[in-house]
Amino acid sequence: MKKITVWGVDWAPPFAQGLVRDLRVRWALEEAGLAYESRWVGVEERHSDTYRRKHPFGLVPVLESDEGTMIESGAIVYAIAEHSEALMPADQRAKTLGWMFAALNTVEPPVWNLFVIDLLHPDEAWAKLRRPGAVDEVKARLAALSAWLDGRDYLQDCFTAADILMTTALRFIRHTDLVAEFPRIDAYVKRCEARPAFQTALRNQMADYARNVPVAA
Amino acid sequence: MKKITVWGVDWAPPFAQGLVRDLRVRWALEEAGLAYESRWVGVEERHSDTYRRKHPFGLVPVLESDEGTMIESGAIVYAIAEHSEALMPADQRAKTLGWMFAALNTVEPPVWNLFVIDLLHPDEAWAKLRRPGAVDEVKARLAALSAWLDGRDYLQDCFTAADILMTTALRFIRHTDLVAEFPRIDAYVKRCEARPAFQTALRNQMADYARNVPVAA
Repeated sequence: MKKITVWGVDWAPPFAQGLVRDLRVRWALEEAGLAYESRWVGVEERHSDTYRRKHPFGLVPVLESDEGTMIESGAIVYAIAEHSEALMPADQRAKTLGWMFAALNTVEPPVWNLFVIDLLHPDEAWAKLRRPGAVDEVKARLAALSAWLDGRDYLQDCFTAADILMTTALRFIRHTDLVAEFPRIDAYVKRCEARPAFQTALRNQMADYARNVPVAA
Repeated sequence: MKKITVWGVDWAPPFAQGLVRDLRVRWALEEAGLAYESRWVGVEERHSDTYRRKHPFGLVPVLESDEGTMIESGAIVYAIAEHSEALMPADQRAKTLGWMFAALNTVEPPVWNLFVIDLLHPDEAWAKLRRPGAVDEVKARLAALSAWLDGRDYLQDCFTAADILMTTALRFIRHTDLVAEFPRIDAYVKRCEARPAFQTALRNQMADYARNVPVAA
């Protein structure tokens, strides 16, 4: 994979900084040792015909390379992992993809639901009424994840692409104490976030936002 | 892939019949021409240590074969597709996985959210207050999908594994008229559901529920 460009948003409000999903792609590229350039799309530009030709739903991330244009953080991270034994051991491809989908389809939905309630609709009546049930749904998934992590440092025998997706999914509830209530998960997230590749990816995403800060902000 | 067993739930209430995610796996196996046996787990048994050893989150589907145990419908369907050119042309693997994640992570979340509101919490105050916004979020995704399907019979140049995931994700709002409001999507879903492999998979899932109907139901 050569001549890599990663598309993110040009700026995000503070509550969303460090959560936008191009972070996953940047992290995977850093782990794999692949160089890339970042490009940014504005909120309104996302719905332009030009950008929709890159991404039919007007979302980020998009990855462009000599291999073509890719959408969806899960699929992009998997494609990067296919180039890097450090992200996906050759004999663990199916298992890794299973945990990648588990991160994005089993853990992220209730976690994202709570993010939407707390950060996107904090003052609405429905959000206040819904919140207790939403917290219970998060806790059910975290309890199962905690049980799985008993005796394990990572989801599989070593750090893989699935840990990138799980860690970044769990970051959507960084505004709560829910992860801290499960010490094994808390240690797991800290272990993953301590990796130099994560730190570099996060620093670069933040630097882009600082460069692009809107005049009105 | 040999000696395949697919785990689903032993029974589902009528509103959920034809929606449980082992349907995706059954459909993919039928398209690929791979024989399988079905097994069922009960609601309480799902949380047993025995079943959690198969699936850490106590969910279905699980696929067991000579290649090992797999979780997550997206990952399982991808693994089946790797064995079948009919589900994923060899030169379209990355594109197909992109559309598979788009189905499960971009389209399914708002669609599932509306399913939860309408079918799981129909009488709750928060659900009534939340519903209009949830419908708008579904429509935004459907509008983008409809634009993409302009001039296309399937998500890619031919039917692929991604169409299995997209069609089954859209079935979560079969109780509404939302898909019918987008004639291209409506025709797309009907085109996919008309496939003999889908019909066989659905019939077999239904036959299993009929066989396992609980005494109290």
